[in-house]
Amino acid sequence: MEFHSPLATVSVSRFENGVAQSQTDALAIEEPLEIRLDYQVGDLPRVQKSISITMRTPGHDFDLALGFLVTEGILTPGLLAQDQVVSTAYCGPTQPHLGHSNVVKIVLAPQVKFNLGTLERSFYTTSSCGVCGKASIDALRLKSGAELKLLQKTSIRLAKNSIPELPQRLLEAQKVFASTGGLHASGLFSSAGELSILREDVGRHNALDKVIGWAFQKNQLPLDTSILVLSGRISFELVQKAAMAGIPIIVAVGAPSSLAVQLAEEANITLVGFTRGQRFNVYTGGDRIV
Amino acid sequence: MEFHSPLATVSVSRFENGVAQSQTDALAIEEPLEIRLDYQVGDLPRVQKSISITMRTPGHDFDLALGFLVTEGILTPGLLAQDQVVSTAYCGPTQPHLGHSNVVKIVLAPQVKFNLGTLERSFYTTSSCGVCGKASIDALRLKSGAELKLLQKTSIRLAKNSIPELPQRLLEAQKVFASTGGLHASGLFSSAGELSILREDVGRHNALDKVIGWAFQKNQLPLDTSILVLSGRISFELVQKAAMAGIPIIVAVGAPSSLAVQLAEEANITLVGFTRGQRFNVYTGGDRIV
Repeated sequence: MEFHSPLATVSVSRFENGVAQSQTDALAIEEPLEIRLDYQVGDLPRVQKSISITMRTPGHDFDLALGFLVTEGILTPGLLAQDQVVSTAYCGPTQPHLGHSNVVKIVLAPQVKFNLGTLERSFYTTSSCGVCGKASIDALRLKSGAELKLLQKTSIRLAKNSIPELPQRLLEAQKVFASTGGLHASGLFSSAGELSILREDVGRHNALDKVIGWAFQKNQLPLDTSILVLSGRISFELVQKAAMAGIPIIVAVGAPSSLAVQLAEEANITLVGFTRGQRFNVYTGGDRIV
Repeated sequence: MEFHSPLATVSVSRFENGVAQSQTDALAIEEPLEIRLDYQVGDLPRVQKSISITMRTPGHDFDLALGFLVTEGILTPGLLAQDQVVSTAYCGPTQPHLGHSNVVKIVLAPQVKFNLGTLERSFYTTSSCGVCGKASIDALRLKSGAELKLLQKTSIRLAKNSIPELPQRLLEAQKVFASTGGLHASGLFSSAGELSILREDVGRHNALDKVIGWAFQKNQLPLDTSILVLSGRISFELVQKAAMAGIPIIVAVGAPSSLAVQLAEEANITLVGFTRGQRFNVYTGGDRIV
């Protein structure tokens, strides 16, 4: 196997109509990323804790780690990045095929008001899938619908005619997709339909965290005038992550789950799904579609 | 929203060529399932612990919970179900729209040799995505490649001509798929191409755990003469779950990740992906394709 992140190439036997040919094939790289937090509570000595291991496609690992801290409620969208994060760096043994390790350490500023409960919850739990392992079902929701609603700008509008073009633009920007079929994409667009950032990953939650972490470092959070475009289906977790970053409109190629629609409704997010050709469904927040 | 598990129906505004129509749409239900374990270590009092919360599509929850315990290494494929599990039941408040709770409690037999380390790991971690949250990257692998290899029967063979039909048969058996586009499927086939079980879920790892939990209850583990057919992409986690259940051949519609191929190689699993029409790629274990 040869690695040229985000792709690895392998030899395969490609069968067509019963005849085998030896070929090389490009695969999406999937490797674990450990996110370590270095933080302080009150006057106690600093603590280092591994808070998550997620299976991700290497590339934009700092975006991923910082975005994860935002969407888990540890970093705050409204405050400057430099006031919350002292440093973000790889640590631990370098993986020769990557040129860096599979561990990112984030040192939090001492003034970060740290909710130990939040950390414990995200430590016990997944991170990668955002909700699994949560100590109880009640803990699934990081904020209430009413709290999330406050983050949503109701003034933003999206022209219905521009919606079908958005997934197409995302796909065009996805150089990798065509060659592997294995990467999910997440992109931010302006209401004029301009792409500002695209990130890819084997995990759709990671692709979104990478986008949000990128915006965090540019002090662009909350993303209350952005449109999030997703290449796949819409789970509860993706809506929650978008809500935590203040995103008011989500447009996806795939279908939402029942809980994704419920949370979007509660959080006043406009949810558009099943966008195929000139057709799409508006599940919630149709007042923003003009 | 109305619930008729595994689907919920909602009203949507369906846009086509800029014209909106009010319609009902069927969504895959996504809700949390908490898995609780009731077990005993030595002569100590029995302990109840929540070991996982996974976002799943309701239906076959006992299959899911038991399959999860098998693929996490807590239950043993080679032993009888009745010797390991005393009872499996819902507990906690009934969800009116489901007719049962979102919590499954499994009481383990006292004679189950319980590795507390395994439990702690799976408690700390995800479950739902199988690997996230693991206390360290080394803990990703539940068993070594050499240990997994021992579970694989090398004598099973699969005719190359029968491969293209398998995903088609899976799809035909998936009544739900066409109406939501939101459910992943996992099915077991004999080498003669006969479907023995199909399970669906919003999470592909859950669909596979449901299949394995079904087989566990029928004392059919290890599944060393079965072919696993998957509707989507192949992650590291799916290969690991298949390996823990002794499955020797995986055929998927989607592409594998780099780590999925590496683990399949180590565990001596035949991995077939990108099965489209009369074409497919054999990534590992080609000696079983005849």
